[in-house]
Amino acid sequence: MPTNTFSYQQLFTFSRNIFLKIGCSEANADIATKTLLSADLRGVDSHGIARLSGYVRLWEVQRINANPNIKIVHETPSTAVVDGDKGLGLVVAPAAMQIAIDKAKNVGTGWVSVKNSNHFGIAGYHAMMALENDMIGIAMTNASPLVAPTFSIERLLGTNPIAVAIPAGKEQPFVADFATTTAANGKLEILQRKNQDTPNGWVQTKTGEPSTNANEVRNGGALLPLGGDREHGSHKGYMLGSIVDIFSAILSGANYGPWVPPFPAYVPMPENMPGEGIGHFLGAMRIDAFRTADEFKANMDQWIHRFKTAKTVPGEKKVIIPGDPEREMEAERMLNGIELLQPVIDDLTQLAEKLGIQSI
Amino acid sequence: MPTNTFSYQQLFTFSRNIFLKIGCSEANADIATKTLLSADLRGVDSHGIARLSGYVRLWEVQRINANPNIKIVHETPSTAVVDGDKGLGLVVAPAAMQIAIDKAKNVGTGWVSVKNSNHFGIAGYHAMMALENDMIGIAMTNASPLVAPTFSIERLLGTNPIAVAIPAGKEQPFVADFATTTAANGKLEILQRKNQDTPNGWVQTKTGEPSTNANEVRNGGALLPLGGDREHGSHKGYMLGSIVDIFSAILSGANYGPWVPPFPAYVPMPENMPGEGIGHFLGAMRIDAFRTADEFKANMDQWIHRFKTAKTVPGEKKVIIPGDPEREMEAERMLNGIELLQPVIDDLTQLAEKLGIQSI
Repeated sequence: MPTNTFSYQQLFTFSRNIFLKIGCSEANADIATKTLLSADLRGVDSHGIARLSGYVRLWEVQRINANPNIKIVHETPSTAVVDGDKGLGLVVAPAAMQIAIDKAKNVGTGWVSVKNSNHFGIAGYHAMMALENDMIGIAMTNASPLVAPTFSIERLLGTNPIAVAIPAGKEQPFVADFATTTAANGKLEILQRKNQDTPNGWVQTKTGEPSTNANEVRNGGALLPLGGDREHGSHKGYMLGSIVDIFSAILSGANYGPWVPPFPAYVPMPENMPGEGIGHFLGAMRIDAFRTADEFKANMDQWIHRFKTAKTVPGEKKVIIPGDPEREMEAERMLNGIELLQPVIDDLTQLAEKLGIQSI
Repeated sequence: MPTNTFSYQQLFTFSRNIFLKIGCSEANADIATKTLLSADLRGVDSHGIARLSGYVRLWEVQRINANPNIKIVHETPSTAVVDGDKGLGLVVAPAAMQIAIDKAKNVGTGWVSVKNSNHFGIAGYHAMMALENDMIGIAMTNASPLVAPTFSIERLLGTNPIAVAIPAGKEQPFVADFATTTAANGKLEILQRKNQDTPNGWVQTKTGEPSTNANEVRNGGALLPLGGDREHGSHKGYMLGSIVDIFSAILSGANYGPWVPPFPAYVPMPENMPGEGIGHFLGAMRIDAFRTADEFKANMDQWIHRFKTAKTVPGEKKVIIPGDPEREMEAERMLNGIELLQPVIDDLTQLAEKLGIQSI
C-alpha cells in the first residue's frame, strides 16, 4: 500500500487507542471507532478520522465527557428523550438508536430525541442499525449554524442531515443520507483544497449576495439551503433543515438554531444557550408493524430494479439507488485501504505525540 | 364581490352538493369539502375546487367509491395499515390521520400507511389535524409519475409532497407543506396560463435536456426533483420523493413509482400494477411524549421569534416562517372571498349542469 493509505484495521487500532487514552471504556472506544470510521469507509471523508483531533480538542475543553451516563429522562411506549451527558455523539447516538429499536420491537415503532450530545459522525450509520432488525431506520441531527434561511443573511441552521435506511430483499438496502443544504460542508472543503470555485447556489456572501467562493463561509458568508434560492426551492431546504432542528433539539431540550454549539473547540460558545448540547432524532419502524417483511421486500426489490434500470439521460450510465455508491466504496476501501490526505496524516501524527500513543 | 369571487360558504355549499350528488354520506361530504377547500383558502389553488370535476370524473369511471368502508387491515399499538376502499383521499386521509392521533394518545406516537386511496388534497391539512391535540403532525402522499429521478429520462415519481405541522405557544404553528420537486405542478400551471417560461432547473425535455418550457411535461418531458440537477443537489430531492413513495405505498401495499394511477380519468391505467390505488403516510407525535408541552412551546416561540426577526438580504422584508403566508391568505380569503379563474368557473358550471344541481 502507498504510505498515505491505511488499512481499516490500522485506522481502527489507532482511533480506538485515542478514545481509550481520553478515558473511554473499552466498549465505548469500540463503538466510537466503528461509528467514526464508517464515514471513511463510505467515502464521507469529512466526517471520519479527519475529525478525530477535533473530538479530542472538545474533550480537552471539557465539552465532551468520555464516560457519559447516557439515560432516558422521559418516555412512553413508543418514545423517549435521552440525556447524552455530554458524551461523544458517536457513542450516544447508537445507544439512543438501540432504544428506538427496542421500542419498535415492543409497539411497532420507536422515536428518540436526544439532548446534551455532540457530533455523531454520519447519520447513515445510525439509520442503518435498524436494517438487521428488518426495520426502517431514521436518523437526523442538528449542527453548528452555517446555513442562512431563505431571505436571511444570518447563519441560523446547521447542515442538519437526514438519513433513512430501508431494507430490501435480494436487492441491497436503500440508504439515503444527505445534508439539507445544496452541498454538504465536506464538498466545500474539497473545493477549498483544490482552490476551485463552487457552482452557483451553494453559498452567499455575508451581505447575502450570490457567490461562488468556496471560502465564503470563513468570510462570514453562509451555506444555502437545498434549492439555493427562492426560485429554485430554497424555502424547501430551509423547511427541511428547520424540521431536523426542531425534532432533534426542541423535542429533547438541546440547543437549536443559532445556539447550537460549534464543533471547533476554539470557537466561543453562543451566549444565553437555551438547551443542553446538540440534539439528535432517531427512529425505527418495524416493517411487519405494517406488512409482512416478505411482501414489503418483494415490492422494494421491484422498486429498486425498476429505478436502477430506468432509461438514462445522454452520458449517464445508470440511475443511482441511494446507498449504492457508499456500499461500493466501502467494499473497495475494505479491500484496498483508505487513503488519507497528508494534512490529515500530519494532524493525526501530532495527536498521537500529544497523547503519547503509537503513531498512525 | 366581483362575479368571479365567491365566499367560502358559497364554495362550501356547491362542493358539498356535488359530493352528496355522487353518493357521499352527509358526514363524508362535509369532510371532503372541508379538506378540498382548505387548499383554496390557503392559496394552493391547483389543489382545491379546481380539481372537483376531476374527482367526479374518477367517480364516473368507478375509480372512486363514494361510500368507502375505510378499515384497518393490520396494526400494532403505534402503527396501522388502512385500506381506503377506493374512497376519496379527501375522506380517507383524515380518517387515517385520526387513527394516528388516537394511537399517539395511547402510546406516544401513531403512524398510518394507507393503500387503495385517491388524491388527498393538500398534505398540510392532514398534518394540521394534529395541532389541536398538542401533537406534531406529518402527512405525505405519492402521486402520478411526472418526475424523473436524477440521471433519468423516465417519469418514475410523483411530486410526492411532505407536510409537517408543529405546535407553538404564543406564536402561530410552524406548518411546512412542500412538493419534493423544485417546483410544484401548480406553479407550472400558472406559467402555462401566462405563456411564460420556467426558471432553469424545473423541467427537462423527454430526452433529458434542460428546458424552460412550461409545457414540457405535456411533451413527454419531466418535472425535476428539488435541486434541479446533480450539481445543485437533485439527488436529494430524488431521495426525498423516493422516501415518500416507499413510506406511502410499499409500507401499505399501494401502487408505487411509475405504477401510481394517474389523476386524469382519461389517462389509461398503468399495466401490471403491483398494489391498490395510491398511498399516503400519516404520523402524529404527542409533544408530551417527549417533554411537557409548555417547555416545548416556549422553545418553539423563541425559535420562531429568532428566525422571524433575523437580518434579511437586501430587498427582502423578513424571513418567512413556514405556514405564515398560507395563514394570512386564509384570513384574507375568509373575509374577502376566493377568486376563481374563468375556466374553473366554466368547468364548475358544466359540472353542475351535468349533475343537475344548482350552479355556482
